Amino acid sequence: MTRAPIPDLAPGERRLEGAVAHYLARVLRLRAGDAFVAFDPATAREAAAVTVWTDQDSITVRFGPLRAGLARAAHELTWIQGLAKADKCDAVVRDATELGAARVLVAFTRRSVVKLDATRAIERQARWERIASEAARQCGRSEVPLIDVPCPWSEALVRAVDADRGPECARFCLWEQATDPLAPPLFEALERGAPIAFACGAEGGLEVGEVDEARSAGWFVVSLGPLVLRTETVAAAVLGAVRVWTGLQRRKTGPPLPFSGSG
Amino acid sequence: MTRAPIPDLAPGERRLEGAVAHYLARVLRLRAGDAFVAFDPATAREAAAVTVWTDQDSITVRFGPLRAGLARAAHELTWIQGLAKADKCDAVVRDATELGAARVLVAFTRRSVVKLDATRAIERQARWERIASEAARQCGRSEVPLIDVPCPWSEALVRAVDADRGPECARFCLWEQATDPLAPPLFEALERGAPIAFACGAEGGLEVGEVDEARSAGWFVVSLGPLVLRTETVAAAVLGAVRVWTGLQRRKTGPPLPFSGSG
Repeated sequence: MTRAPIPDLAPGERRLEGAVAHYLARVLRLRAGDAFVAFDPATAREAAAVTVWTDQDSITVRFGPLRAGLARAAHELTWIQGLAKADKCDAVVRDATELGAARVLVAFTRRSVVKLDATRAIERQARWERIASEAARQCGRSEVPLIDVPCPWSEALVRAVDADRGPECARFCLWEQATDPLAPPLFEALERGAPIAFACGAEGGLEVGEVDEARSAGWFVVSLGPLVLRTETVAAAVLGAVRVWTGLQRRKTGPPLPFSGSG
Repeated sequence: MTRAPIPDLAPGERRLEGAVAHYLARVLRLRAGDAFVAFDPATAREAAAVTVWTDQDSITVRFGPLRAGLARAAHELTWIQGLAKADKCDAVVRDATELGAARVLVAFTRRSVVKLDATRAIERQARWERIASEAARQCGRSEVPLIDVPCPWSEALVRAVDADRGPECARFCLWEQATDPLAPPLFEALERGAPIAFACGAEGGLEVGEVDEARSAGWFVVSLGPLVLRTETVAAAVLGAVRVWTGLQRRKTGPPLPFSGSG
């Protein structure tokens, strides 16, 4: 079933114009009689919807009763990203949101070239929150990941697991010089439904001391193989693997998907 | 072991300057006595190397005998990408190279906004070849993926499997409205070591007719779940899943896990 973001979603019939109408009529190509699922990215609520009428500039839609949004991330996933240059962290936040991360922490690492004072750190956090919110809207996700204010690496390692289910959390520090592959412990963690945290350095990679720190804090230090990824590709690759694997798990254990029309 | 790209790699001692020296000394931080693997991206050959001496502007390295490069893609992977706007295909070529694709075909789809005449198609192919070559160098990959000249969707579906092992090739057309998850047939294909081809539309997605065409040509039409990815994220997510899964396969036949505890 097609999913579409609708601001200020409420039950009843409504005539929509502007960007929302354009998106429904031109991008999703909805015609009169077409059913879809409307969701409100601000409230994580959704409703069944039917297109009643379209004309040149507007589209009229009938919305059913509101219910809690269903398209939530399948796992509790946290991503620690070493603060990288230019707009690389923007891309990571966007990818991590689409791929289901529940939380993104940007960490200052020793090889982070960019330095942020407290004011700029808070500005960046606000920027990444906007990016995450927009990415959630675009991908049809009904909640937005939590974006922490950037903090030092050591603090991020602690914060990432400082939650109700902290002790259960499987932690993976991705390091290009590690020798153990990520897959076996990751898949084991996914199968037992554990919360999962990943940590990845900035462009220059992590220093040995930072890796040791992670190891001492209970993180597996793992590799993605001999080809070294750019830092901005790692989140998409790893969270993509989680996403695809989740499809395998669903199929195995067989609970029906709550979405008719998409799987 | 650290891997570094060295142009015109040859056995013996050599003093390197300029960008190569900068990369070894500043980015990889190699010091006298440090061993690494040098590879020549142009010839897919590599050699054991030891740093002999570094100074302000140069680095002297001793290279061992040349051998065939080892860091090749683990699977025969082909990626068909619907021609997308701006630099999105550049990003896909870069990600696909890092993540081990053997071949990338950009296809004109009905919703591709960009149109290319023959001259511009060839220019784009050349551009993507340069990007793939640079990405291979950066990630330490010893061969460069084949980049086809852009062609229509129907032709790409045929070309992608028109190789020695064509009939064995597992084919996956990624479509946000599909109901079957990618994981089960993908993992089955990986386990039997089959060549694999993926196809993904441009920004607006694929039209039903294009999906039917793929299905008739023996492609599985599969979904990545309810959250719709941007077209430029799909390659990284799917090829990332292949990369991570490959680590699991290796582990199955390899030594026992060095981890104790459940993390």
